[in-house]
Amino acid sequence: MTSTGDAATDADRVRQRFLLELGTDVVVVDDDVAESYRYDRAGTVRPGRPLAVLRPRNTAEVQSALRVASELGVPVVTRGAGTGLSGGAAAVDGGVTLSTERLRHLEVDTAASVAVVGPGLLNVEVKRAAAAHGLWYPPDPSSFEICSIGGNLATNAGGLCCVKYGVTTDYVLGLEVVLADGRVLHLGGRTVKDVAGYDLKRLFVGSEGTLGVITEATLRLRPPPPPATTVVATFTDVVAAGHAVAAVSTSVRPSALELMDGAAVAAVQRVRPMGFDADVGALLLAQCDAGGDESSVVSAACAAAGASYVAASTDEEEAELLMGARRMAIPCVERLGTVLIEDVGVPLPAIPDLLAAVAGIARRRRTAIPVIGHAGDGNFHPLVTYDPTDPAATSRAEAAFDEVMEAALALGGTVTGEHGVGSLKAHHLRSQLGAEVMEVTRAVKGALDPAGILNPHKWV
Amino acid sequence: MTSTGDAATDADRVRQRFLLELGTDVVVVDDDVAESYRYDRAGTVRPGRPLAVLRPRNTAEVQSALRVASELGVPVVTRGAGTGLSGGAAAVDGGVTLSTERLRHLEVDTAASVAVVGPGLLNVEVKRAAAAHGLWYPPDPSSFEICSIGGNLATNAGGLCCVKYGVTTDYVLGLEVVLADGRVLHLGGRTVKDVAGYDLKRLFVGSEGTLGVITEATLRLRPPPPPATTVVATFTDVVAAGHAVAAVSTSVRPSALELMDGAAVAAVQRVRPMGFDADVGALLLAQCDAGGDESSVVSAACAAAGASYVAASTDEEEAELLMGARRMAIPCVERLGTVLIEDVGVPLPAIPDLLAAVAGIARRRRTAIPVIGHAGDGNFHPLVTYDPTDPAATSRAEAAFDEVMEAALALGGTVTGEHGVGSLKAHHLRSQLGAEVMEVTRAVKGALDPAGILNPHKWV
Repeated sequence: MTSTGDAATDADRVRQRFLLELGTDVVVVDDDVAESYRYDRAGTVRPGRPLAVLRPRNTAEVQSALRVASELGVPVVTRGAGTGLSGGAAAVDGGVTLSTERLRHLEVDTAASVAVVGPGLLNVEVKRAAAAHGLWYPPDPSSFEICSIGGNLATNAGGLCCVKYGVTTDYVLGLEVVLADGRVLHLGGRTVKDVAGYDLKRLFVGSEGTLGVITEATLRLRPPPPPATTVVATFTDVVAAGHAVAAVSTSVRPSALELMDGAAVAAVQRVRPMGFDADVGALLLAQCDAGGDESSVVSAACAAAGASYVAASTDEEEAELLMGARRMAIPCVERLGTVLIEDVGVPLPAIPDLLAAVAGIARRRRTAIPVIGHAGDGNFHPLVTYDPTDPAATSRAEAAFDEVMEAALALGGTVTGEHGVGSLKAHHLRSQLGAEVMEVTRAVKGALDPAGILNPHKWV
Repeated sequence: MTSTGDAATDADRVRQRFLLELGTDVVVVDDDVAESYRYDRAGTVRPGRPLAVLRPRNTAEVQSALRVASELGVPVVTRGAGTGLSGGAAAVDGGVTLSTERLRHLEVDTAASVAVVGPGLLNVEVKRAAAAHGLWYPPDPSSFEICSIGGNLATNAGGLCCVKYGVTTDYVLGLEVVLADGRVLHLGGRTVKDVAGYDLKRLFVGSEGTLGVITEATLRLRPPPPPATTVVATFTDVVAAGHAVAAVSTSVRPSALELMDGAAVAAVQRVRPMGFDADVGALLLAQCDAGGDESSVVSAACAAAGASYVAASTDEEEAELLMGARRMAIPCVERLGTVLIEDVGVPLPAIPDLLAAVAGIARRRRTAIPVIGHAGDGNFHPLVTYDPTDPAATSRAEAAFDEVMEAALALGGTVTGEHGVGSLKAHHLRSQLGAEVMEVTRAVKGALDPAGILNPHKWV
């Protein structure tokens, strides 16, 4: 009783201190509201309960929040739109969750070809603002309509067109970051080339809220891409599709090169029929915007790898239908059961081996693992799908989830290509990086957040 | 006398310890030989005298060298091919210079589209090895025939085609790094997309030997670019050329967009006549490889900005003659006097203002400042040229050198776009980054090299 009473008192004291500093408009202590900030979209992660949710409106309020958190030694979990797939934004017990949703300022500087944005903007909002000025912000996670730029920065998000146009970090020219102790850093700016000092910007990008809170980013924009030709190819066998990808990648650079295996195609066709045979083994979707004979090279590589059907189209509507189907694959598979979403990556020549390994694991573990992926850069999302009410199926799925990551590592790959480590992959991160890199990781973390209040108890 | 005697004894003890550990094949103590390792190409920097030059043959010898240096507290300056322009590899008194020239292993993995290279290889050797496999390593500093990959990594070197194809860091998939205490880190690998943990690779790239010694890099290769159309435009006024650059950059992405002002053109024409009028104010050279109407867009933008002459050509020999002339500009200007080479960068819309500011400084300081630059990404090399035997001219030149950097900073730019900070720009680095970023820079340095033995007394 006493200890519970003390904990409650401590919690109240923490809440009062934040309220005193930031006021009721910023500090949410209502349990029902706070509940909606506990989770991200890593459905199997069990988050803690935050003492409060902070919704700062500007950099100064982020600084105040972090100063109070530092003073009290309270953990801070920074959260964007909550669409993360690894539990990186999952709340921690006794901590506060700092939402960046209200940091939504936006300036497009057409002459400099940059957008200066608050992290609370959605990816699609930045894309739209750029397009309104005849420019393009390329990074396009499948969730681009609902994910925030802050989350994209925290995970160094990729997407479909990054095989040609690069990932989030490739577009970051400048950052404003608030450190754990409330200091503000201004890194980079609107200058394209800049090697003055360490590349600290890129240290914060992908650091999943463990080093600081990004309060503004200066993002590089570019002229829109030329119109694309879309190549569709089907295969009876997913490994053959993998060989096609490896062959394409050494000869041309499509602006998208996506794979769905038969189970993923079937899951999508249950929701939105696309006219593919029910027994298709795999589908490759390529977009080619370089002109010349690029699309013919892709078509020929698919045919040579044994495609049963190859077609090319310049029809934009048809292309958007196909790419849209690819982007909706995860929600469609989620209708079939609970899904553990992998995000493994391997070197390009190892793609067929990875696909074969996943098929083997699925068979051995009697678990459905539909596979989709950004095949052109070797980044795949095997979707380990199971019935959570069946304990045996659950434990087989958990074993399969681990084994897919182990297979990727055995092939010289990574446990996460674009979703981040979060809560789900901490154990495997250590296998991947090794003791020395983990030591250096902790040394860098210690240099920037010595008290360890930023997104603790996850992977650092 | 005593103290000199002690110093000599100390120096001998240090040399003996390195010789004991690494042998006479690796440790050079001969003063004449060591002399040739003291300087890089920042001619105005006065380096110290190293106690020894170390030329390790493999990673294990680099580890041994750094363990001994750590044990003795001896500074270590890492040196590539000595073509740096900022004094980053300038020797320090009482230290050792570690040359990477013998770390020259090379593997091209065609299927993965990567080259795994030792830092001692020249940039051109990596380009050639890639080309022999039908692939391309894009980063192309003007010195690509004589600069090493290790130096490129240390400075995050750019070049001509990086306006479209990116700089060195954009091609680094993996690094092997030896830390000050001799630990080896393996970062990244052959996987294209990888967000597992902090982006430590990119922290080492551009860190100028202050955080570790890079002993191997895994570099991304790509299919060769399509053939380019070269657009040449001349202007009577360099600021007008700057307006053309700003206009081009918002509409298309040429694969090179280079500027030379009239003085630079004249300096090159003294060595290799190119047929331009003696009174040309500026020359723009663009290469367009995207096909479509890209070269017409560039030509039209030049005409609209007031070009006195515009021509386009698909002749490769002519293109190479022009681009080669651009690359030889620095050595040609160096025939006219001692040169302080600037490397400033500004946001694209500030290009005309920067060019006007440089012209103003040249007039006010009565100092010749021919300007060349990678105009398409706002990165310029004003070449502050003077007679070093004239003390008044020297001091005017030094003042002009500072003022150009101050002008770039006032325009929201950087003091170094691709050459690095080295010894030359430490003072201005602090102005650019500010106190908070310098604090964090030192904290990161302290986390990786707590004794501060790596390339000390420069900018960290």
